[in-house]
Amino acid sequence: MTSLRDGNPRVREIRVPTLCVSEPLTQGAQKCFKEVIDVSSGDPHRAGMKPITFIRQVLAVCLYPQLLEDETLPLDVRRRAQRLLQACDGESLGSYTASSGLPHVRQSIAEFIMKRDAGVPAYSRNIFISAGAQRALMVVVKLLSGGEGQRQTGVLTPRPCPHTLPALLREAGVAAVPYRLAGGRGWAVDVSEMQRAVRSCRGRCEPRALYISNPGNPTGHVQDRRSIQDVLEFAAAQRLVLLVDEVYQDSVHGQDREFISYKRVLFEMGSEFWQAVELVSFHSLSCATVAECGLRAGYLEAVNMDPGVMHFVDTLLCTDISTPVPGQLALDLMLDPPKPGDPSYGTHIQEILLRRNTLSHNAQRALGLLRELPGVSCQPAEGGIYLYPHLQLPAEIRERAQMLGMEADAFYRQKLLEEEGLLVGAGQQGGTGGSPHLRLCVLLPPETLEEVLSRLRSFHLRLMNADISRV
Amino acid sequence: MTSLRDGNPRVREIRVPTLCVSEPLTQGAQKCFKEVIDVSSGDPHRAGMKPITFIRQVLAVCLYPQLLEDETLPLDVRRRAQRLLQACDGESLGSYTASSGLPHVRQSIAEFIMKRDAGVPAYSRNIFISAGAQRALMVVVKLLSGGEGQRQTGVLTPRPCPHTLPALLREAGVAAVPYRLAGGRGWAVDVSEMQRAVRSCRGRCEPRALYISNPGNPTGHVQDRRSIQDVLEFAAAQRLVLLVDEVYQDSVHGQDREFISYKRVLFEMGSEFWQAVELVSFHSLSCATVAECGLRAGYLEAVNMDPGVMHFVDTLLCTDISTPVPGQLALDLMLDPPKPGDPSYGTHIQEILLRRNTLSHNAQRALGLLRELPGVSCQPAEGGIYLYPHLQLPAEIRERAQMLGMEADAFYRQKLLEEEGLLVGAGQQGGTGGSPHLRLCVLLPPETLEEVLSRLRSFHLRLMNADISRV
Repeated sequence: MTSLRDGNPRVREIRVPTLCVSEPLTQGAQKCFKEVIDVSSGDPHRAGMKPITFIRQVLAVCLYPQLLEDETLPLDVRRRAQRLLQACDGESLGSYTASSGLPHVRQSIAEFIMKRDAGVPAYSRNIFISAGAQRALMVVVKLLSGGEGQRQTGVLTPRPCPHTLPALLREAGVAAVPYRLAGGRGWAVDVSEMQRAVRSCRGRCEPRALYISNPGNPTGHVQDRRSIQDVLEFAAAQRLVLLVDEVYQDSVHGQDREFISYKRVLFEMGSEFWQAVELVSFHSLSCATVAECGLRAGYLEAVNMDPGVMHFVDTLLCTDISTPVPGQLALDLMLDPPKPGDPSYGTHIQEILLRRNTLSHNAQRALGLLRELPGVSCQPAEGGIYLYPHLQLPAEIRERAQMLGMEADAFYRQKLLEEEGLLVGAGQQGGTGGSPHLRLCVLLPPETLEEVLSRLRSFHLRLMNADISRV
Repeated sequence: MTSLRDGNPRVREIRVPTLCVSEPLTQGAQKCFKEVIDVSSGDPHRAGMKPITFIRQVLAVCLYPQLLEDETLPLDVRRRAQRLLQACDGESLGSYTASSGLPHVRQSIAEFIMKRDAGVPAYSRNIFISAGAQRALMVVVKLLSGGEGQRQTGVLTPRPCPHTLPALLREAGVAAVPYRLAGGRGWAVDVSEMQRAVRSCRGRCEPRALYISNPGNPTGHVQDRRSIQDVLEFAAAQRLVLLVDEVYQDSVHGQDREFISYKRVLFEMGSEFWQAVELVSFHSLSCATVAECGLRAGYLEAVNMDPGVMHFVDTLLCTDISTPVPGQLALDLMLDPPKPGDPSYGTHIQEILLRRNTLSHNAQRALGLLRELPGVSCQPAEGGIYLYPHLQLPAEIRERAQMLGMEADAFYRQKLLEEEGLLVGAGQQGGTGGSPHLRLCVLLPPETLEEVLSRLRSFHLRLMNADISRV
């Protein structure tokens, strides 16, 4: 059978925006790259990270149950597959599920949350599975939307924020009310900025919710308990629904940092606050360490949400009919992995640790190199999968970009793509006096990261040393 | 390994609306059913139909590529899996795809369409993959929506129509403009009814699109070429965008009936019409014979659509990030199945034929029984997976329902569920003087259908013969 796999060169298709490759940036520039590397957004499998064996084995058996007889597969894989099949109507992944998800998986999620939060109660009835966290967020934002003019719903939104968020808010018909993160302090959350934002939007819209990501996307900041408390007190005082994007909860890699959920802190603040804040937390199969983006699943947990509103969450999810079943089952496998003593435990824990070590190593390695580049500064990331460096480009380059009708960072990114075949993400203005940032995903195989850094370094040094009249 | 499968009784969980089971309908009524059978909507795997082996084998290998080495799997399965893996970024189902779908699968769909339509050209750039046909329809309807009051978008909608359609149109913010199907003539399409509908909505909304399902859902009517031409001429004259739901295209089972696509007829009507009608056709993995509802995939093909509009289809699909990859690959496998000579061909064709024969046999069998019941009439279904019988209930029962504040058919359905554990779908008023219909999915294992018919018959006869004062 090896002949089937040999002789078929690994073809990697990568989506690249159509761009005209212009004249060489400087004499001697290299344009001969073998393939474009895209680190603009998080897609670890595309970049060559391997899937987690246990998840894939169980899903394969669920799809083709004759594999239950295959004794080369570990016993816990087959047992788990059988249990999951029994949780599906007609014991088939081909059946619809309730629009809120399979009861069995919702229960697994509740149990995972309770364990994660040191016993803070979680109930499956408050959990809704969706085709990705983005979809769940859209449903909730749509429910909060409404009003026109001064009464239009406003959502407090960090700057910088996840690159997909502004389009989502626009599509849902709500106004984004920006609050700046503290770029000079590792992108920490600053409640006085939130207060300023609320005051600033008076007469323009009515703030009804506060969106925050922790670990921060794309900043990599991880909030401590004190910071989370401050936000919760602010939300309680302002009566804002808290939309907490916790999709990178299992990717905290900063030294002495740990993930604490907003829900846990809220609970531990005592009953006065516990009843006072409506909170929705989001998690995702795509952004977690397992990075199963293509299977499309995520979930929300609603805390203190009005039952009437919960009913509408379900109703809106109904328009999707149901979340893809392989993704739902993968959520179950991610949140309830093999335990010590199970045949798959050794391999599984090794794969997970390798992945976390890779992320942590890569974040350090990239930070070190970025900080060596002239005109580049970068805060260390403590969590998530991005670095978010700041560019200080010479005036000549900024003017050149302006002449071409482009922002300086767009000019930089386009040239980087043309010259080196490296696609990096756009940053956002805000909190830093309007100077440009780049977004780089660092959850990659280490050898790919080296290639990324080498291309970036070589381009950057060439650009900074170039005779700008030739750019 | 058999021990794993033995001793684990097949548990079938079926979602049932919460209902208080009331007192027995009549003396001697049986209330001891083992499980509820739900034939209210199409979910063949839940009902016990088996998945198609080739599709499941290839997907299992794609999810766990070590199975490429498993020589107990047919060679064409492993080759196909390898080809599909190469079509995925990073050769993993865990990568995102473009929001419009994998280019390889879009190309397969275009080739399938061209073959189906005897060479009428189809281009992958006009095909958009989505998480089900319903999602694709929602995207297009949203693009057509807009306007307020008299200028609000109206969509001509058949009565009866798919049970999911009214909610979809409401959610998209368009007005449904009903046109009646000819209940007395096998639910044929009547263009004069469409003309009446257009006239009737003047001053209330602005009709911009015409929705039609062929084969008809839930009617089972299959349009012939002449009927399709009439609708196309009407759409051209009225400048309506045609939204053609062709999700049951591979489920035509009426004698001497065949599926002809709207696109093919339009093309063959000549260039005068070909340029004049904007048409969007929908197909689905869930409604096709393979019935892989849980994998969530479908697609639309846009014909003569403005490129600017196509761009927005892509943009709206972007909010879903991407369609689940297992579903996309299953579409490819469904539309490009094993060919004569391939190792899997024999089993595959046998499974597909068995399924089609089951559908055709069940539709006949159920029709025969329904027509024997007093007060029930039913048009034969020529395609799709439903029967749509008409109920003529005695005045006493209608009055009894009214006293309970219920429609007569809702009363009937509730009693049927309580007494016999059989859940059937609601019909819609319209075209039949407002008298009630039921919707029954007949794509079930024949033994399950027998159980369904036996419960229905026993309940119906009991009801019709009951002393109504005791109901």
